[in-house]
Amino acid sequence: MSERPTHRAIDLAEKCAAIPETWQPRVVAKLNDYHFKVARLEGEFIWHDHADTDEAFLVLEGRLWIDLPDGSVKLGPGELFVVPAGVRHRPRADGEVRLLLIEPRGVVNTGSEGGGRTAETDVWI
Amino acid sequence: MSERPTHRAIDLAEKCAAIPETWQPRVVAKLNDYHFKVARLEGEFIWHDHADTDEAFLVLEGRLWIDLPDGSVKLGPGELFVVPAGVRHRPRADGEVRLLLIEPRGVVNTGSEGGGRTAETDVWI
Repeated sequence: MSERPTHRAIDLAEKCAAIPETWQPRVVAKLNDYHFKVARLEGEFIWHDHADTDEAFLVLEGRLWIDLPDGSVKLGPGELFVVPAGVRHRPRADGEVRLLLIEPRGVVNTGSEGGGRTAETDVWI
Repeated sequence: MSERPTHRAIDLAEKCAAIPETWQPRVVAKLNDYHFKVARLEGEFIWHDHADTDEAFLVLEGRLWIDLPDGSVKLGPGELFVVPAGVRHRPRADGEVRLLLIEPRGVVNTGSEGGGRTAETDVWI
């Protein structure tokens, strides 16, 4: 087609590549009061939960484990998993993982756990 | 790793492959009061809008155009676009497109337009 688009889509791989640090989610789009965030993960995160909201993980690249109270789930590229509100979980990247997170605006990465690995929220890339 | 997952992630490509008809979105996951839906598209849809909600399109396979009142946007695999609430749009698939839609539960594919191309909502796959 010789047609030329006037608006630009958000290239998730390009956004991921631009994130300077692992475990620092960056907002790429807003859907009502929800945020789409990209993140680069490597190694293990801390156990935490989000009391008031579900949290969706969609893997773009790499292999992600999410440990759960009663087991674990493994996600590869193009795989989605929703951690229900109030369920403790621990993301664990097998090598580097590039990820899309979908959750309400303002959700903190460490949930109610807090601590040194807490990232700023609402930072766009 | 010899580790075995106990929970299963949602394989979006596998879900798309199982959809019998084009333009019939199927729910694959719930995030609070939002739905993740997969769809297979081919050809042109109708112009419509969703008065009360934004709508997110994430292309999994193929090339999707979304015509907008003031132009258009082109999405390839791994690209995301959010159509704001109240903005008229017309999806148009260049060949077959496999797509992930994210929007509040119960949103109708034809919005306020209605008509013969209206699909049932809340059908899971």
